Amino acid sequence: MQAGFAFMEAGAVRSKNTVNILIKNLLDMLIGGIAYWLIGFPLAFGSEGNFFLSYSYWANYQLPSEKYGHWFFDFVHAATASTLVSGSMAERCNFYAYLLYSFLITGFIYPVASHWAWHPKGWLKVTAFKDYAGGCVVHMLGGMCALVGAALMGPRIGRFHKKTGEAHDIRGHSVPLAALGGFILLFGFLAFNAGFRGHISHPGDGEVISRAIVNALLGACGGGVGALVIHRAGTFGPTHAWSFLMTLNGALAGLVGVCAGSDVFPSWAALVVGVGAGFTFLCLHFLLLKLKVDDPLDAFPVHFGGGFFGIVAVAFFMEDGIIFNPSRNSALRLLGLNPAANSALVKWFPGLTNFTRPDIDIPWIAIDAPRLRKWVKASPDVDTSRVLGWNLAGAAAISGWSATLCLILFGILKKFGILRVDKEMEI
Amino acid sequence: MQAGFAFMEAGAVRSKNTVNILIKNLLDMLIGGIAYWLIGFPLAFGSEGNFFLSYSYWANYQLPSEKYGHWFFDFVHAATASTLVSGSMAERCNFYAYLLYSFLITGFIYPVASHWAWHPKGWLKVTAFKDYAGGCVVHMLGGMCALVGAALMGPRIGRFHKKTGEAHDIRGHSVPLAALGGFILLFGFLAFNAGFRGHISHPGDGEVISRAIVNALLGACGGGVGALVIHRAGTFGPTHAWSFLMTLNGALAGLVGVCAGSDVFPSWAALVVGVGAGFTFLCLHFLLLKLKVDDPLDAFPVHFGGGFFGIVAVAFFMEDGIIFNPSRNSALRLLGLNPAANSALVKWFPGLTNFTRPDIDIPWIAIDAPRLRKWVKASPDVDTSRVLGWNLAGAAAISGWSATLCLILFGILKKFGILRVDKEMEI
Amino acid sequence: MQAGFAFMEAGAVRSKNTVNILIKNLLDMLIGGIAYWLIGFPLAFGSEGNFFLSYSYWANYQLPSEKYGHWFFDFVHAATASTLVSGSMAERCNFYAYLLYSFLITGFIYPVASHWAWHPKGWLKVTAFKDYAGGCVVHMLGGMCALVGAALMGPRIGRFHKKTGEAHDIRGHSVPLAALGGFILLFGFLAFNAGFRGHISHPGDGEVISRAIVNALLGACGGGVGALVIHRAGTFGPTHAWSFLMTLNGALAGLVGVCAGSDVFPSWAALVVGVGAGFTFLCLHFLLLKLKVDDPLDAFPVHFGGGFFGIVAVAFFMEDGIIFNPSRNSALRLLGLNPAANSALVKWFPGLTNFTRPDIDIPWIAIDAPRLRKWVKASPDVDTSRVLGWNLAGAAAISGWSATLCLILFGILKKFGILRVDKEMEI
Repeated sequence: MQAGFAFMEAGAVRSKNTVNILIKNLLDMLIGGIAYWLIGFPLAFGSEGNFFLSYSYWANYQLPSEKYGHWFFDFVHAATASTLVSGSMAERCNFYAYLLYSFLITGFIYPVASHWAWHPKGWLKVTAFKDYAGGCVVHMLGGMCALVGAALMGPRIGRFHKKTGEAHDIRGHSVPLAALGGFILLFGFLAFNAGFRGHISHPGDGEVISRAIVNALLGACGGGVGALVIHRAGTFGPTHAWSFLMTLNGALAGLVGVCAGSDVFPSWAALVVGVGAGFTFLCLHFLLLKLKVDDPLDAFPVHFGGGFFGIVAVAFFMEDGIIFNPSRNSALRLLGLNPAANSALVKWFPGLTNFTRPDIDIPWIAIDAPRLRKWVKASPDVDTSRVLGWNLAGAAAISGWSATLCLILFGILKKFGILRVDKEMEI
Repeated sequence: MQAGFAFMEAGAVRSKNTVNILIKNLLDMLIGGIAYWLIGFPLAFGSEGNFFLSYSYWANYQLPSEKYGHWFFDFVHAATASTLVSGSMAERCNFYAYLLYSFLITGFIYPVASHWAWHPKGWLKVTAFKDYAGGCVVHMLGGMCALVGAALMGPRIGRFHKKTGEAHDIRGHSVPLAALGGFILLFGFLAFNAGFRGHISHPGDGEVISRAIVNALLGACGGGVGALVIHRAGTFGPTHAWSFLMTLNGALAGLVGVCAGSDVFPSWAALVVGVGAGFTFLCLHFLLLKLKVDDPLDAFPVHFGGGFFGIVAVAFFMEDGIIFNPSRNSALRLLGLNPAANSALVKWFPGLTNFTRPDIDIPWIAIDAPRLRKWVKASPDVDTSRVLGWNLAGAAAISGWSATLCLILFGILKKFGILRVDKEMEI
Repeated sequence: MQAGFAFMEAGAVRSKNTVNILIKNLLDMLIGGIAYWLIGFPLAFGSEGNFFLSYSYWANYQLPSEKYGHWFFDFVHAATASTLVSGSMAERCNFYAYLLYSFLITGFIYPVASHWAWHPKGWLKVTAFKDYAGGCVVHMLGGMCALVGAALMGPRIGRFHKKTGEAHDIRGHSVPLAALGGFILLFGFLAFNAGFRGHISHPGDGEVISRAIVNALLGACGGGVGALVIHRAGTFGPTHAWSFLMTLNGALAGLVGVCAGSDVFPSWAALVVGVGAGFTFLCLHFLLLKLKVDDPLDAFPVHFGGGFFGIVAVAFFMEDGIIFNPSRNSALRLLGLNPAANSALVKWFPGLTNFTRPDIDIPWIAIDAPRLRKWVKASPDVDTSRVLGWNLAGAAAISGWSATLCLILFGILKKFGILRVDKEMEI
């Protein structure tokens, strides 16, 4: 994954910044590894903890052998979230600022959010919140950090005309390099989706993984072809080209979009969600242009946009989802979000969790197609509007969390003038 | 795999066409995914069907969970077959023509052929036809489509001298890019060969896979070194260089060559078959030059040539193959091909299959070294000349099928003038 | 792996030599495959053999099915060892010389050393010698061959000033290409470490592999960040840049460093060993500059240096290692190396092995965390100073073996004037 981001970014920046961006991506992995080992994993998946974070296994101390697989796999997510940011801040970020935020995102911001969603005691985990492969936890979080970084940093010199504000393309120096990165990412994502199981030897795992991979592929198809056609159709202003980068980013957005439910989507839904994610990406892409936020790699539109569309869509398109059962999941309930709001109060205090509302507990680890189907059948009262409510709540909480912390972090760095490189250096 | 083809082609074309070829390879995967989901897999591996094609699981409707792995894996083949064509038509193919043929090859031409060879009811499957990893079904088919496309399209402007007809090299703009693609392909192929099992947890699978990988590697060694030496020796005219591209393409041809029997070749035979495939590649490469067909990526020589050599060789070099038992597999039988012809009549009507000649049924799925050996011992009457006969018949049928359909497809496109880009655009 | 080295080298050499270095890396695999098949594997892991080498399975004759996996996996090591050398001799090595040494390293020099360390009858295998993933057997051996080659060949023209002897940088033509290679290598190495088990279905395997991967990652973190900081701090002379190549090579050295004990290091130790390996790499890098040996890819500093540090460190940092038990592993014993020396005499004669000192036998295959822990508890007399002694002995023996053979090989080639290309060709 890291390699994919590295080359996509390397190709998308100007020639003189190639080495700079490569070393940043390499260090994302190296610094991130240390951060995750020291505090990240303990905060996210320590054996002792509460609804907000956990606190054991510092520096892998007393980490049992069987958890190393989980450690490595989740580290890849953490590094992914952090690397997204280097894209949006490319070509103008100070090196020390970069080292600091890379450490904090991998070691603190991401781990706490992943604790909420995936640790057995996390406050989102014990609800109907459904995010199979990190559409919200990894991609929305990373995308939000990228947005805050890009916005506070300001656009690259020359990106927008000083007076008219017109956007001016700063071409990357090598499309093949960017393409290489994109291809690596596409394939990395397929593995990413598959790997979310964390184990491949339990009976039934193979089927869930295969399904997740096929869904991821169809999501990419929908996102890529969708974005290409929508863009070419001139939806967002006249265009005369079949755009390679739009296709590639659309495919990535589609992949991100199906992350939240790649284990439970029917195939056609994955395609539909991909198209939706591709469209969301285009909307946010042109919104950023309007707002004059310069995100060279489109990290925010692709990852936040795709992730957000997916986390909403999963409630509609999962098995027994809202579109399959519109009466039970009535509009009233949807809008009122009452079940979610009610349960939120109860769940916030972990002691009450297991006794009061065991019916709404969907353990993330245990979700697999056959069990899910049985469980859905066995509890006729469950309604996927709860998934929608909790997913919206989770998306808001995680976006808020990452936005707040990044605002503080990048704000302080900006105040002290070490966020951005000198003008002379940049040009 | 797609990434491999993408970069090999990107490096081999002129600089200005790089982005064009990259978007085509990306779309091969994205369009192909939709085509394969919609009609490809149903035509190839639907639960209901006859000897020619099947017809269920449209758009994955009612596809059981356990088939998703098969779906994804076979999709990779379909996309490979289709991508080969983009190589041979590089730098001059119309974008809409490209979208259409990409859809049809992945969604129709390849699936029907793969139904013949690998669906339990396919007319080739119920015979002695032996193609373990798609040497015929994937590579000969793709190579043939590539040839028809390149021939109907005509050479690139400037490729052959207008009057003398002399070939003039159009150099690719970046050997490292091409090499990157080639390396990715080489490794992809190893996995490709291994993956043909489709499952890795049955007892004995590990051994067959390991053997297939070692055979694929030795095939590449034979093909690469063989092509390098034969080319350097001046067999096809004077040459003064150790040619990197010849070595790389030779290695690829060698890999393609061992596909048909990588599970049953002894190691030395894989090497021999690799050399043969490399030599076949060189012959076809220079034949195309004579015929003034412009195949920029050598898709036809590498894939059709290598595949054809392999599909013939497997009858000779498999365990109990013709060379090990020349008397029983007598020359008379070989030439007369009687057993094959006889069985063809019987087999063509699927109802009779299981009752009349169960002895010649080699289920592709069930082939693994120990079972094969036992089976060979248990039925002393089996003769591998049948494999030869059926493989020749299969190769002819699949080549004919793909050539006919591509002739119709590209013929129509050419007639309507949308096969090739304008002269101005090309130069 | 081969692809990784290929691109790292392609990027690091001058533009005109790109194709040359690519074909050499490709042929390393192709020639190496033939060499390893013909004589390499038989010499290393034949069923019949003595303490020094084995002698069966020539050209895979009668190789049982279940050994093909081992064959392929160990071939990758052999090719790695050989490819290292093409880096250190880049841009000036004669093509025939290259073909010859590539064949001999893959087919003879590496196989014999790996027989010593990993064949059940190998003289190092039956001792306390501990090298889990080839830190000594693969990397020190390859690095030593690289050094001898580079030293005998002499520096590239213009690398050192004729009179002052000042080093003059010969810049590679493409940092992105080199980075691509480096990234591929980093990921290849993670798989490399993991794959050393050779099987993934035994109970407990998953845990050892996960641990090895996490350790490899932390080793890379330590090596990369360590080398970056140490270099930047000006330890080896003034410097003003955050060096990408130093970071990348440091990370690789860190990975190499943890190879020897990635299954038994605690996480923090992997980090420490990585830093140590990164530092060793820097020391050797600047030592080579002083000695005016021109190693364009730093093959010797990275692989020999990292491997050596790791093979020593494993005795200190493994479970129950020297630093955890300083009194039992007393300094006296350490320096005197008596147990090692004594056992060496005994072990050298394989007949006596199993009867005389069963207590010091650590079968490499059998090492896994739980068993090791039990074994350590059960035999309080074992001391890891023996590991240190045997590892030093093994490192010396393998370095001596490879240095001697390479001296003879490259010496003869030099004598006959076919080691290096002509001056005109080089510039």
